[in-house]
Amino acid sequence: MTAGLSLADLAARFELQLRGGRADQAVTGVATLADASANQVGFLANPRYRAQLATTQAAAVILRAADAEVCPRPCLIAADPYVAFAKVAALFERRPAAQPGIHPSAIVAAEARIDAGASIGPLCVIEAGAVVEAGAVLGPHCSIGPRCVVGAHARLVARVTLVQDVRLGRRVLIHPGAVLGADGFGLAFERDHWLKVPQLGGVVVGDDCEIGANTTIDRGALGDTVLEADVRLDNQIQIAHNVRIGAHSALAGCAAVAGSASIGRHCLIGGGAGILGHLSIADRVTVTAMSLVTHSIREPGEYSSGTPIQPNRQWRRNAARFKHLDEIARRLGAGAKDSTE
Amino acid sequence: MTAGLSLADLAARFELQLRGGRADQAVTGVATLADASANQVGFLANPRYRAQLATTQAAAVILRAADAEVCPRPCLIAADPYVAFAKVAALFERRPAAQPGIHPSAIVAAEARIDAGASIGPLCVIEAGAVVEAGAVLGPHCSIGPRCVVGAHARLVARVTLVQDVRLGRRVLIHPGAVLGADGFGLAFERDHWLKVPQLGGVVVGDDCEIGANTTIDRGALGDTVLEADVRLDNQIQIAHNVRIGAHSALAGCAAVAGSASIGRHCLIGGGAGILGHLSIADRVTVTAMSLVTHSIREPGEYSSGTPIQPNRQWRRNAARFKHLDEIARRLGAGAKDSTE
Amino acid sequence: MTAGLSLADLAARFELQLRGGRADQAVTGVATLADASANQVGFLANPRYRAQLATTQAAAVILRAADAEVCPRPCLIAADPYVAFAKVAALFERRPAAQPGIHPSAIVAAEARIDAGASIGPLCVIEAGAVVEAGAVLGPHCSIGPRCVVGAHARLVARVTLVQDVRLGRRVLIHPGAVLGADGFGLAFERDHWLKVPQLGGVVVGDDCEIGANTTIDRGALGDTVLEADVRLDNQIQIAHNVRIGAHSALAGCAAVAGSASIGRHCLIGGGAGILGHLSIADRVTVTAMSLVTHSIREPGEYSSGTPIQPNRQWRRNAARFKHLDEIARRLGAGAKDSTE
Repeated sequence: MTAGLSLADLAARFELQLRGGRADQAVTGVATLADASANQVGFLANPRYRAQLATTQAAAVILRAADAEVCPRPCLIAADPYVAFAKVAALFERRPAAQPGIHPSAIVAAEARIDAGASIGPLCVIEAGAVVEAGAVLGPHCSIGPRCVVGAHARLVARVTLVQDVRLGRRVLIHPGAVLGADGFGLAFERDHWLKVPQLGGVVVGDDCEIGANTTIDRGALGDTVLEADVRLDNQIQIAHNVRIGAHSALAGCAAVAGSASIGRHCLIGGGAGILGHLSIADRVTVTAMSLVTHSIREPGEYSSGTPIQPNRQWRRNAARFKHLDEIARRLGAGAKDSTE
Repeated sequence: MTAGLSLADLAARFELQLRGGRADQAVTGVATLADASANQVGFLANPRYRAQLATTQAAAVILRAADAEVCPRPCLIAADPYVAFAKVAALFERRPAAQPGIHPSAIVAAEARIDAGASIGPLCVIEAGAVVEAGAVLGPHCSIGPRCVVGAHARLVARVTLVQDVRLGRRVLIHPGAVLGADGFGLAFERDHWLKVPQLGGVVVGDDCEIGANTTIDRGALGDTVLEADVRLDNQIQIAHNVRIGAHSALAGCAAVAGSASIGRHCLIGGGAGILGHLSIADRVTVTAMSLVTHSIREPGEYSSGTPIQPNRQWRRNAARFKHLDEIARRLGAGAKDSTE
Repeated sequence: MTAGLSLADLAARFELQLRGGRADQAVTGVATLADASANQVGFLANPRYRAQLATTQAAAVILRAADAEVCPRPCLIAADPYVAFAKVAALFERRPAAQPGIHPSAIVAAEARIDAGASIGPLCVIEAGAVVEAGAVLGPHCSIGPRCVVGAHARLVARVTLVQDVRLGRRVLIHPGAVLGADGFGLAFERDHWLKVPQLGGVVVGDDCEIGANTTIDRGALGDTVLEADVRLDNQIQIAHNVRIGAHSALAGCAAVAGSASIGRHCLIGGGAGILGHLSIADRVTVTAMSLVTHSIREPGEYSSGTPIQPNRQWRRNAARFKHLDEIARRLGAGAKDSTE
């Protein structure tokens, strides 16, 4: 948190152009256009909210030059208003101050190695063979198993479980309820019952990754499950054994990636999307929400499956016809049918 | 739990009409029609189970007047048998008796405010600035962060995490593994890496809400994520930052709502359904299971997407044709194509 | 972990045929074909990886007789290479050695019954009326509620919550974050608000079941939710109240089964698939990933719904046509429309 900031300070610090307003106007926080008071800065990144410019009370609005024309309030002009807003907002974030040291209620094995500058919260369990590096912060109820490494300045907010053989890079941020390093789902059917296929690998998480609440990342069967640097996972995502996700890719809530799939760099996977096992997805692929990827994707671009939402009565009629689509197409004399894969 | 109840007692207490049977017949519990013994009351709400009337051994059956005609056992006639059954069953519920006070193993900050009538279970962590009001019950392994309020008579069954800035109303019930107040998924891409957009808001949960196991509700980016009163969330639901859900709406398991979407009152969202961000859904909208809502819905009613389940061989043929549906329609001379949104 | 194994030992122990190579070649572990060193055994089960035979350095490859022809390395020939590999790999698994006894930080009610041969990890909570049988192992942060039974040699890896009335069979394996026995989602709408329908049943889990990380299995409303023996659930699966799953069925990650549905034996449910409530699915049914089952399935076989993934631009054109599919079919003079169910 920072005190005594003015519009001129923000403009100078983040290379924004201040248009209109008093340079010494105090700024005490950030808010939405709709909620901002006269000491708060708002922003316009999504054009959906442009109409709110007319009525906002914000001290200034961070926006693109083109939107400044129609903004009656002072403007802080940015090439990318969302990036600029992220930086301004960070000035007003309340970060919990973590004291280095081990909370007396934590259970730490003698054979664990905890850097003196790390912070281990109440009721954490750190098992033999685990390592926690300098500046790492573990909130309450975390559990760190054998051969796990929590990299420097990583933050496990609360109740994060690293089962075993999980190596986190620097500055990794993990939200509550996430489970890394549980066994992958490996089964072989023998005559009349399932045989568990031993899961012997680990999980490697690159620097600057963020992992959402209740997300699960399984250990590899053989070899590791890998997130390269700066991968961003939202909540309730499932990453199966031996998946590899390239640097700077982001997956939205409830997406799921099956075993041994490989996702490229700079990919964007929509909420609830699924990716089948053993596939390979190129760099810079976008998959829209709730689509299912059933074959490898070699070219960058945007991909989708599914049908549009409709009133149920109409949808039922169309869906019923879908069951006979091949027949309909044949009647039309459409060419030889294509494969789905 | 209640002792010494008779059929007449139930009829009087819940304004049911007893038809047939002895008024003083003892009732010791509730059961399904198939399992009920001669001292247990069953019920018929779903017509799917009507055939079980013929063979049930129940002391009496709670049902609609129309179904009483064909029921050989004594009847307790109700306008809404499911509502009546819920009330009768509540008489036989075993509720864990929570003792007021703080379990000696809990870690409670001196700066937290815990009402003397609240019950804090074993191994809970309550941080500075948290408030737990009268009659609230926290089971084992809960974690309550700064600026969180657990309202009067709320119940956190076990292992619930309120990260920070989460305000729960009265009588809120939260099941194990739920995470409220984790950071929303806010990212801005700057040149060659993701920049985290600070998440500064909170979560507000109205009176009488119920939140299922392993459900996640993120804090707002700016402003709050809001559940109005009597919202009911099943397990493994994902509610992103700044979502608003109107009073009396219910979401079934694994549904997901993306950032800043607004759902009206009295909505029913089916299991696994998805709602994209920044949309608005009117009151009294039903979305069927696994549908994806990609645009705002202005009118009450039932909405769906997807295709029907079929034997895989037929499905493959039809799905392959879907890839050429526009071509097929053009060949037919169908009118100008419509947008999906 | 086993020391001093040779190729001949593996062949003898698992009835594999060794072809090529030295019988006394030492084997120190298992690996993928791509990663195997000269002392490690690899395997080929999925034909997708056959090309790796040409370059692998493995001490030997477990594979089918037909693939042995094209393998330049020594072969261990198996009727089912994946089953054989599972058995070989198990020789090299590092299992945490759990000491019998109760960790001093665990909170165990006097009225709980813990077998002297069971192992209760740090910071577990065992409530009155719970039973933990011989050889069971509970990792850190588990919580076992009233009337729960953890069967002999069951293993709860870490942070597993059994809420109440959950009976686990022998050798059940549960991964972190799983919640068994939370209330089912039972609601009745009375005039202007939801009424909670008491959830009075339990959960029964058969011998040899495996339950993935962050999976949830609700208690029955009346009667129990049941997993028969050897059911295998991956991560983040949702099993609603009163579901029954037949022996040897396996569900992949993020699948969800709604209330009172019944799944047969030897079924395979794909990742993210959904099964609506009160349905019945026959034995040996396969449902492909992200399909939605909306009616009972009486015949064994493979079933699917959904549409294929396409580049978004093409998908949008086809999806827009889907909204008018009934109209298109009528124009074609297709017969009376069918129901979706």
